[in-house]
Amino acid sequence: MKNKKLWGGRFSESTSDITERISASVHYDKRLFRQDIEGSIAHAKMLSKTGILSGGEFNSIKDGLEQILKEIEDGSFVFDAGLEDIHMNIEAKLTERIGDTGKKLHTARSRNDQVALDLRLYIKEESTGIEERLKALVALLTDFAESHIDVLLPGYTHMQVAQPVRLGHHMLVYSWQLLRDLKRLNQVSEACDILPLGAGALAGVNYPIDREFVRKELGFKGITMNSMDTVSDRDFVLDFLYFAAVLGMHLSRFCEELVLWSSSEFGFIRLSDRVTTGSSIMPQKRNPDVAELIRGKSGRLYGNLLSLLTTLKGLPLTYNRDLQEDKEPLFDSVDTVKLCLDGIYEMISSVKINEERMKDALYSNFSTATDLADYLVKKGVPFRESHKTVGEIVGYSEKNRIPFFDIPLEALKNFSPHFSDDVRDILNPESSTERKESAGGTSRKEILKQISAIKKILS
Amino acid sequence: MKNKKLWGGRFSESTSDITERISASVHYDKRLFRQDIEGSIAHAKMLSKTGILSGGEFNSIKDGLEQILKEIEDGSFVFDAGLEDIHMNIEAKLTERIGDTGKKLHTARSRNDQVALDLRLYIKEESTGIEERLKALVALLTDFAESHIDVLLPGYTHMQVAQPVRLGHHMLVYSWQLLRDLKRLNQVSEACDILPLGAGALAGVNYPIDREFVRKELGFKGITMNSMDTVSDRDFVLDFLYFAAVLGMHLSRFCEELVLWSSSEFGFIRLSDRVTTGSSIMPQKRNPDVAELIRGKSGRLYGNLLSLLTTLKGLPLTYNRDLQEDKEPLFDSVDTVKLCLDGIYEMISSVKINEERMKDALYSNFSTATDLADYLVKKGVPFRESHKTVGEIVGYSEKNRIPFFDIPLEALKNFSPHFSDDVRDILNPESSTERKESAGGTSRKEILKQISAIKKILS
Amino acid sequence: MKNKKLWGGRFSESTSDITERISASVHYDKRLFRQDIEGSIAHAKMLSKTGILSGGEFNSIKDGLEQILKEIEDGSFVFDAGLEDIHMNIEAKLTERIGDTGKKLHTARSRNDQVALDLRLYIKEESTGIEERLKALVALLTDFAESHIDVLLPGYTHMQVAQPVRLGHHMLVYSWQLLRDLKRLNQVSEACDILPLGAGALAGVNYPIDREFVRKELGFKGITMNSMDTVSDRDFVLDFLYFAAVLGMHLSRFCEELVLWSSSEFGFIRLSDRVTTGSSIMPQKRNPDVAELIRGKSGRLYGNLLSLLTTLKGLPLTYNRDLQEDKEPLFDSVDTVKLCLDGIYEMISSVKINEERMKDALYSNFSTATDLADYLVKKGVPFRESHKTVGEIVGYSEKNRIPFFDIPLEALKNFSPHFSDDVRDILNPESSTERKESAGGTSRKEILKQISAIKKILS
Amino acid sequence: MKNKKLWGGRFSESTSDITERISASVHYDKRLFRQDIEGSIAHAKMLSKTGILSGGEFNSIKDGLEQILKEIEDGSFVFDAGLEDIHMNIEAKLTERIGDTGKKLHTARSRNDQVALDLRLYIKEESTGIEERLKALVALLTDFAESHIDVLLPGYTHMQVAQPVRLGHHMLVYSWQLLRDLKRLNQVSEACDILPLGAGALAGVNYPIDREFVRKELGFKGITMNSMDTVSDRDFVLDFLYFAAVLGMHLSRFCEELVLWSSSEFGFIRLSDRVTTGSSIMPQKRNPDVAELIRGKSGRLYGNLLSLLTTLKGLPLTYNRDLQEDKEPLFDSVDTVKLCLDGIYEMISSVKINEERMKDALYSNFSTATDLADYLVKKGVPFRESHKTVGEIVGYSEKNRIPFFDIPLEALKNFSPHFSDDVRDILNPESSTERKESAGGTSRKEILKQISAIKKILS
Repeated sequence: MKNKKLWGGRFSESTSDITERISASVHYDKRLFRQDIEGSIAHAKMLSKTGILSGGEFNSIKDGLEQILKEIEDGSFVFDAGLEDIHMNIEAKLTERIGDTGKKLHTARSRNDQVALDLRLYIKEESTGIEERLKALVALLTDFAESHIDVLLPGYTHMQVAQPVRLGHHMLVYSWQLLRDLKRLNQVSEACDILPLGAGALAGVNYPIDREFVRKELGFKGITMNSMDTVSDRDFVLDFLYFAAVLGMHLSRFCEELVLWSSSEFGFIRLSDRVTTGSSIMPQKRNPDVAELIRGKSGRLYGNLLSLLTTLKGLPLTYNRDLQEDKEPLFDSVDTVKLCLDGIYEMISSVKINEERMKDALYSNFSTATDLADYLVKKGVPFRESHKTVGEIVGYSEKNRIPFFDIPLEALKNFSPHFSDDVRDILNPESSTERKESAGGTSRKEILKQISAIKKILS
Repeated sequence: MKNKKLWGGRFSESTSDITERISASVHYDKRLFRQDIEGSIAHAKMLSKTGILSGGEFNSIKDGLEQILKEIEDGSFVFDAGLEDIHMNIEAKLTERIGDTGKKLHTARSRNDQVALDLRLYIKEESTGIEERLKALVALLTDFAESHIDVLLPGYTHMQVAQPVRLGHHMLVYSWQLLRDLKRLNQVSEACDILPLGAGALAGVNYPIDREFVRKELGFKGITMNSMDTVSDRDFVLDFLYFAAVLGMHLSRFCEELVLWSSSEFGFIRLSDRVTTGSSIMPQKRNPDVAELIRGKSGRLYGNLLSLLTTLKGLPLTYNRDLQEDKEPLFDSVDTVKLCLDGIYEMISSVKINEERMKDALYSNFSTATDLADYLVKKGVPFRESHKTVGEIVGYSEKNRIPFFDIPLEALKNFSPHFSDDVRDILNPESSTERKESAGGTSRKEILKQISAIKKILS
Repeated sequence: MKNKKLWGGRFSESTSDITERISASVHYDKRLFRQDIEGSIAHAKMLSKTGILSGGEFNSIKDGLEQILKEIEDGSFVFDAGLEDIHMNIEAKLTERIGDTGKKLHTARSRNDQVALDLRLYIKEESTGIEERLKALVALLTDFAESHIDVLLPGYTHMQVAQPVRLGHHMLVYSWQLLRDLKRLNQVSEACDILPLGAGALAGVNYPIDREFVRKELGFKGITMNSMDTVSDRDFVLDFLYFAAVLGMHLSRFCEELVLWSSSEFGFIRLSDRVTTGSSIMPQKRNPDVAELIRGKSGRLYGNLLSLLTTLKGLPLTYNRDLQEDKEPLFDSVDTVKLCLDGIYEMISSVKINEERMKDALYSNFSTATDLADYLVKKGVPFRESHKTVGEIVGYSEKNRIPFFDIPLEALKNFSPHFSDDVRDILNPESSTERKESAGGTSRKEILKQISAIKKILS
Repeated sequence: MKNKKLWGGRFSESTSDITERISASVHYDKRLFRQDIEGSIAHAKMLSKTGILSGGEFNSIKDGLEQILKEIEDGSFVFDAGLEDIHMNIEAKLTERIGDTGKKLHTARSRNDQVALDLRLYIKEESTGIEERLKALVALLTDFAESHIDVLLPGYTHMQVAQPVRLGHHMLVYSWQLLRDLKRLNQVSEACDILPLGAGALAGVNYPIDREFVRKELGFKGITMNSMDTVSDRDFVLDFLYFAAVLGMHLSRFCEELVLWSSSEFGFIRLSDRVTTGSSIMPQKRNPDVAELIRGKSGRLYGNLLSLLTTLKGLPLTYNRDLQEDKEPLFDSVDTVKLCLDGIYEMISSVKINEERMKDALYSNFSTATDLADYLVKKGVPFRESHKTVGEIVGYSEKNRIPFFDIPLEALKNFSPHFSDDVRDILNPESSTERKESAGGTSRKEILKQISAIKKILS
């Protein structure tokens, strides 16, 4: 075991088995192989350009690394847990292949800046895939909103029917949430877009390296300006984990509604067979498992954020081995976010709307009571009094089991002499939505403005 | 009790005492009185401009509100917990003063969009004060770095002496962390800079309001585009809580070092009497309480973030009363952040550096062992071998209790024939720092570049 | 300022204003005044008993402390933030009153063991009040279950109607959750029930004190056995915060159901006017605010637990000032738990059940589909096949809009020749519950067993 | 794919790929194979005993399951992700092997109570292994304390030297922490020790099962009394995650000290080569990676607790698919706890103490300043005055760079005429520890009492 280690000079005893087990990370950090090799090639190219390596040495290293890349991709590469991490696995294999030149790759570099590089590259790349998913989902929701603009349902506050809204308006809430997530994701990418390589172990390196060259090779916008900060900073990982936690929160709210709406009590939607499962016991069941799982996965997304925040708490400068604990929460949040976005996409793209049940919910409640109060106000009744009057009408409706929308004009007149024929239109839910002409309101016109604005953002 | 409520029409029984107690928020949300009054005046002005209120009504409302503002500021205003929150306290008092016109203030508005407005204004305003503190602290650290640029100390990885660094380089790490916090804070402000008022309860309002007018009055950059999103969104609060959590993490790391450095074992600094306390029992004690408290306060900052994330998890649209739980964590994080930044500022502006102890730490360790290995490499020894040789020299030094820096040349030559007179300069810690010429390294020149860059950012 | 401090001998400069502000805790730890005085009297009595104080000194101290207790209780005591905490406020006032004897109270004691004592006493005492609330609520739920044992409603899995259950069975779930909470609370009390006083600052004291005497005076079960552990341990606070977090989780689930059930879509219950509120805008609203607030308060209970866990992470021994951050989360969780339990009690004791809507929900779904499948099994059909057959019947019912319970026998026979007249009883929800005779099932008999078991636990 | 599902009767379309991916759990829950098979055999035995299965059927099921157990253990079993989870994988394979009898195993059982059973069995079994580790570590620490009872070092508060303590006393703090963890673990085991099987999907089962029989077979202490609670309860998992989080906090504190103590500034210990690693760049490095990693792993342990708390927040009864998210945090915390305990054991069993450095730290500080103040008190000086006098002596020592312990008696007399020859013994650190005779203090006698008490607990 020991003779594999690259740092054994001062040590007289091998590390124990538990040290190997607790230190090993290659079983999860091998996921960084592409970034590691990409970074190493850029580094070697720079070493060659500045004369630290010869051109021949660079070519040999580059060929060796590209060969290893292929082997990892096709599954033929054998990882060795005794070599701790992905960086050492690749470097050891390279040296085994091309001899001592392989060892020169690590000149003017340390694992501390190398791992910071790999992580930044990784998040940048994964962010692209996540951005695509976010945009596709926003586009889907926006199309959905557009095609269902004339469907009405109750808007809720406190889980109580509040006022009629258009289904499009409701669905666009999720578009706006996701657009904020997208903005946060872009801020993460920007935070990652600074080259850390060249910080060395912590103090910079004893070689005349050219960090600007590497920056251009790898496509970063800038370079870090303090080597000690560079190897101890994990803010950019936290930023990703926070983005993922907030997204998870949004999706938990969305899925809560999908679960509610597909209950028999609401019955507003029917999720497709593609995203529901049955029960091995109860033959009638159609369970919204995908929605439930996504709702539940908010837990791990919160947990991952907290996990790294905790690990970083109270750590002195600079690199401490505790930082190795940054990767598993990151990888898990990346995977979870992608899975959840795919799941929502699938649910929404195959959902069926039950317009009738939505309409029933509007009419079996008091969804336009506010409009009725405003009606009286416009007839000159002070709002405070009109609010009270409508409250009493609601009580009358409940007590006598006469649906609110069916109360005869005569009966209404008993509550206020200001009611007249025009009250019917006031009670109509669609009219109610159209009266919400204020910017951002649930009128048709305002929703179309939203849709147009979102399409512009996406384009 | 009940007759104070503005919504009692439908209710036949008063709310119970426990409902009052669990619902009451005025004891903490009264902090929003300025924002609430500022928002109300802008709203009333718009109502007047659009003809919903008369000019006289507006003047009466404005005068009434300004009078209430003065009374709250001078402490003569009496809050009534039975009126639940700051919004109702102000509105009830206004109506008591100016009569029914007071009730008209709430036209085309709901508490749902009103509270969203107050919160956005509040965070925007508090962010200004926090931004000033952040900048002042970065400036202080940067000046400190500049004036101590020639002080050397060990740089640590794994809490083990790694390589010599300049004290300025070390302190600038905290500048860079705080500059990232500043960026995050600016992103929070930007997220808050969108007017929510006009969303009504959830669907928009039945009045021809002019949200653009209010936007300009209150100095927002834009207006929200979806009323349902507007009343259910608390992302901007989370963003602040996240900013505060990461800042808290940074400060916990900083304070960990201040605590360590002021221990007798390190002895690198002496915190002033102004920020240390003694013990009522142990006469010798000078405890770094301020640093410890700030380190410990990372807990509440993490807790506050988690608190709101939890509250929001799984909530269906739109407004739910659970959202009232957003304020206390926010207020606590605002206060904590300001207190912590003030505390750090005080500690750093009065700290005394012990250069001698820092130097001792460099020389009683093996701080330039890496330089020695690189020296052999430049003499033609492969790095792998030179690393091993220096490892053995370290072992020799330890075993024979001969300080690394005092090993005679003759003794070194026993380990490798390549050692010659020039090795003395290699071992010198200052020379070591100057060899770190790579961008971002700990050489004098590179540190001056950092300082210049930071000053530019601050200006 | 400075001359108030009891530790100033070595200091040449006063603490700065920010140090005072960040250190001050009397504004919240004054809540511990009873425990502090109770502990001090017991300590003084022991000092007198062991001859460290004279009998006269003890009497003087005791009288002084009792006078202060009265003043704090009646509100006439003036707290001084400059004296940092409750301990110093009381001690300083005592000395002001009775002269130098007052200073002797602190003999053989330190604030480190004193605060540990106060906290342990505090939690023990608060636990009693919380235990009473938990038991009262369990009793209420159990009575409710008993009196509603014949009410049926659908049991849900995945928010989908699963099988008929008795309402009593459903409500008893919350009884069992609370009984587990009670057990956890008792474990907390037990963890607190160990006297810390006598540990001194960290190493024990230089006086021949009698900790067993103090233990008996204060009613602890044992004494701590390691002085360093004693002043650095906050496990017992964490235990309380964890108890509160799990209780908060349970109550969030309970309140989620109360919110759902009082929606118009479910309509299973009607919360009383006492625990609902209206809207200042929408006259029809009856919002379940109390349930929403309790659901939302799970956030702060989780946050408080996390807050202290974070603060404690990575702290070296023994007492560090970071530990001061233990109190605010504790106090907040104590208050929150009591408020939430009171709120639930009020809701349940005044709720109205809508049996009709519950029954409708059973009959407008496929609540006894599993029973139908089991029926076929008993007629000899393999379960796998019977499950499939019933699945098809469900599909038929949906497609043809014939309620499941109304499908004519003839139609059923088309799916399987095994159906005969006795199928009606099988479909009956009440029969279904009675068939669940397995221990812990939803049959009447088994529910009565639960009720009896719970009553026994409570008695 | 679809025809593998056991619940497809009502479904006309297959589940989509993303549904399979988001639902699949067999890649992690296969870890429960032993518990699943053990539980199934007990269930089948009961079905046979109650006549629901024939004896032949039971034997066939038992043989089939035992064969599968062997195959999983020897690695020849092929898992199928399409079959979702471990339960379905085993049941499907059983049916493939023994035909339709295999399907009868699931009679009177649901996956809801089955998974609750597996989890309870799993935690009970893992707790045994963790209990052994905890006890072994406490025993090691206690032996260590005993064999190092005469080694002295400074006790710290606020990271400042406070008073001399015995190393044994310091190490026993960790024993006491771990004993509290052990108690918490035993409470977890007790909470798990209740049989859930027999709850069915949620309401109990339609068969005359004998849960007491199964209880005895599987060695549970009791059976759950409410079927709905049984399938929705995850308190026992939370209890484990909380136990693990607090243990992780304790170990983070322990490791913080190991890291500090192995720094060159403290130099109190030397961790063995077995648990330290070098640097590929810096030849002198001996990094305490194992301690750092364990310190960092507190993050994931906190995160796992929070993850499940979040998932459970606000879930209505009874089983929801969100609950599937309980397993990964549990498994990770189990693995992490075992790894960390092994790591600490390895570090402590091979650590070398540097008594000389500990002694230096005592003598180069003011470790017995409190004793000096108490000395003056015993000579009749009021404590307040003696505290001040010793504070001034400390200042004199610092200013004149005369070590505290070397101040000549003449010089002391300048501060107070009460100093005489006997002051030397007072200053002596060992005498200081022996004066701490109070119960739980750091005197030799009291430490031996602790050791004896702990040995009794362990035996």
